[in-house]
Amino acid sequence: MKTNRLDKIISKLKQNNISQMLVCDPASIFYLTGRMIDPGERFFALLIKGNGDNKIFINSLFTVPEDLGVEKVWFCDEDDPCKIVSGFIDSDKALGVDKNLPARFLLRLMELGCASGYKNTSVCVDTVRACKDDEEIALMREASRVNDEAMNKLITHIRAGITERELASYLKDIYLSMGACEYSFDPLVGFGECAAIGHYEAGNTSLCEGDCILIDMGCIKDGYCSDMTRTFFYKTVSDEHRKIYEIVLKAQKAAENMIKPGVRFCDIDKTARDIIDREGFGDKFTHRLGHSIGIECHEFGDVSAVNENVVEEGMIFSIEPGIYIEGDVGVRIEDLVLVTHDGVEILNHFDKELKIIN
Amino acid sequence: MKTNRLDKIISKLKQNNISQMLVCDPASIFYLTGRMIDPGERFFALLIKGNGDNKIFINSLFTVPEDLGVEKVWFCDEDDPCKIVSGFIDSDKALGVDKNLPARFLLRLMELGCASGYKNTSVCVDTVRACKDDEEIALMREASRVNDEAMNKLITHIRAGITERELASYLKDIYLSMGACEYSFDPLVGFGECAAIGHYEAGNTSLCEGDCILIDMGCIKDGYCSDMTRTFFYKTVSDEHRKIYEIVLKAQKAAENMIKPGVRFCDIDKTARDIIDREGFGDKFTHRLGHSIGIECHEFGDVSAVNENVVEEGMIFSIEPGIYIEGDVGVRIEDLVLVTHDGVEILNHFDKELKIIN
Repeated sequence: MKTNRLDKIISKLKQNNISQMLVCDPASIFYLTGRMIDPGERFFALLIKGNGDNKIFINSLFTVPEDLGVEKVWFCDEDDPCKIVSGFIDSDKALGVDKNLPARFLLRLMELGCASGYKNTSVCVDTVRACKDDEEIALMREASRVNDEAMNKLITHIRAGITERELASYLKDIYLSMGACEYSFDPLVGFGECAAIGHYEAGNTSLCEGDCILIDMGCIKDGYCSDMTRTFFYKTVSDEHRKIYEIVLKAQKAAENMIKPGVRFCDIDKTARDIIDREGFGDKFTHRLGHSIGIECHEFGDVSAVNENVVEEGMIFSIEPGIYIEGDVGVRIEDLVLVTHDGVEILNHFDKELKIIN
Repeated sequence: MKTNRLDKIISKLKQNNISQMLVCDPASIFYLTGRMIDPGERFFALLIKGNGDNKIFINSLFTVPEDLGVEKVWFCDEDDPCKIVSGFIDSDKALGVDKNLPARFLLRLMELGCASGYKNTSVCVDTVRACKDDEEIALMREASRVNDEAMNKLITHIRAGITERELASYLKDIYLSMGACEYSFDPLVGFGECAAIGHYEAGNTSLCEGDCILIDMGCIKDGYCSDMTRTFFYKTVSDEHRKIYEIVLKAQKAAENMIKPGVRFCDIDKTARDIIDREGFGDKFTHRLGHSIGIECHEFGDVSAVNENVVEEGMIFSIEPGIYIEGDVGVRIEDLVLVTHDGVEILNHFDKELKIIN
């Protein structure tokens, strides 16, 4: 167990008058134990207590190292894991539960009367996870370094007629050759008007002259995620597309440049949005400006109009404005940024100026 | 909306005195609408009601076809989706909730007092989904046909010194070339003693003479999953390994042969387990005999000692006994089977007799 991290969480829970919490998010358990287990549909939880009497509940199908630093309680598929867990929960006290605990377990724990009340206390874990420590910052820098280099390698495969899916298919081996074992999300590759479709992945569209090439990609290296978007143009770019690109880039840079501890997420979002709005494309920027990232690609705390929290040193999130013109073009530019003691460190170094690929 | 399927679910809910249910499992929503949406961390739900006043709640980031056959209620990242949903729930009646509804939404709905009680009613959806209709059976046969053929193609790549990961890396393109867009799970490829490790995927172990080659693989074709395991031997097989193989095969066939409507899942499990147990390997068969499968690779209803339900016509599940000797060998043989009117149809046709690959 990483006791520094655990102590911070326990302290947050105490501020909320919670003395016990059932953590189920595999990413949070990884954060505390260094061990990532994907339990599928099976129960998997870490019970943390203010008095230090922590337990981890594991199905005997999974292998975990001996030295996890927390007492293991094993069960098998034939057991009722909620009944086993309830034996370790103080029933006269409230239980903090993980935001992701599935209803089938939560309703069963309630039925068993295992606690005096139930509260979603993931915010106590997530706000600690949001401020990366030095070990994590080093891993996040490395994951983005790999992502920059992978983008450099990927774009060498761009040629007339290649499909989005073909281009995307090169990426897995590029990452693997650099020691990144998997995607942080399936890469999004959109050509021309396909780049304007929300949540589009990669299809059978072939590349033609004048198309934009939107590539949104990320890997997981040593447990930590990268995520970057660049938009290129193939052979030529129209004046209108160039104008759109420059607006997105201006918005992206303005947002990055204002980041320092104490600035509100919503104000960062507003800075980018106002620039795009003033140019008449406000209704074409259809999503929030960014999301926190770390062990998971989307973590607690987004850069959006409704998040009035201030950014703090150690936070890492994306800055990714976009303009999407249906049936025509989509442009998005995205970096990951780290809030430093007095400003910001941009984790991606891949050039952002408009690039025409021949 | 597939009204036949919806009517069956509504009828099950009525038997449980539930007149409204919030379905959140993307696979169940696919089952009812034909549209698969992965909402990530965002709220996504289908509210079904006995009076037919159904609604689907979708984040405006997602694209869905016009003709979904159910009224859409849109929201955006800035909204509180639970508050919006609660406006459509009859607060004086109990609400059925999905087994997978995350605690962050369930606790919020409870806080808003949106219903008079909350019950995990996924069983009403899952028992309907468990018995595949004709359209689904055709798709399941096709997914397994592709899987059989893919195994044939994959094993042509086996050669001395290849690593598990290299062998596994051929599989994606094989599936894609056959129209299967993705894995139903990351393929498990284990050589020699690695085949004995629970939940092992594929590592850097190189293939040597005398090794077993355990391959557990499946694809998703047109929304439906396949899943098959075969264990081969490389160049030679020891007498002890051959003996183990034959025991697993005998157990696998005996379990398959007894399947027909009315037989209990636990008795199918017991048949295979008893055979392995009598040969002295009972403690080396460390998991349940099988799992249901369809839109998801693991669906409701497993073939295990604790499931006393009887199998019904249209159910599809795996039969996959195994023997795992730590530090030595792992053997598992798995088919998908369909319960027919009076017996069983085995969906995999890849040969199961012991095969030595040269």
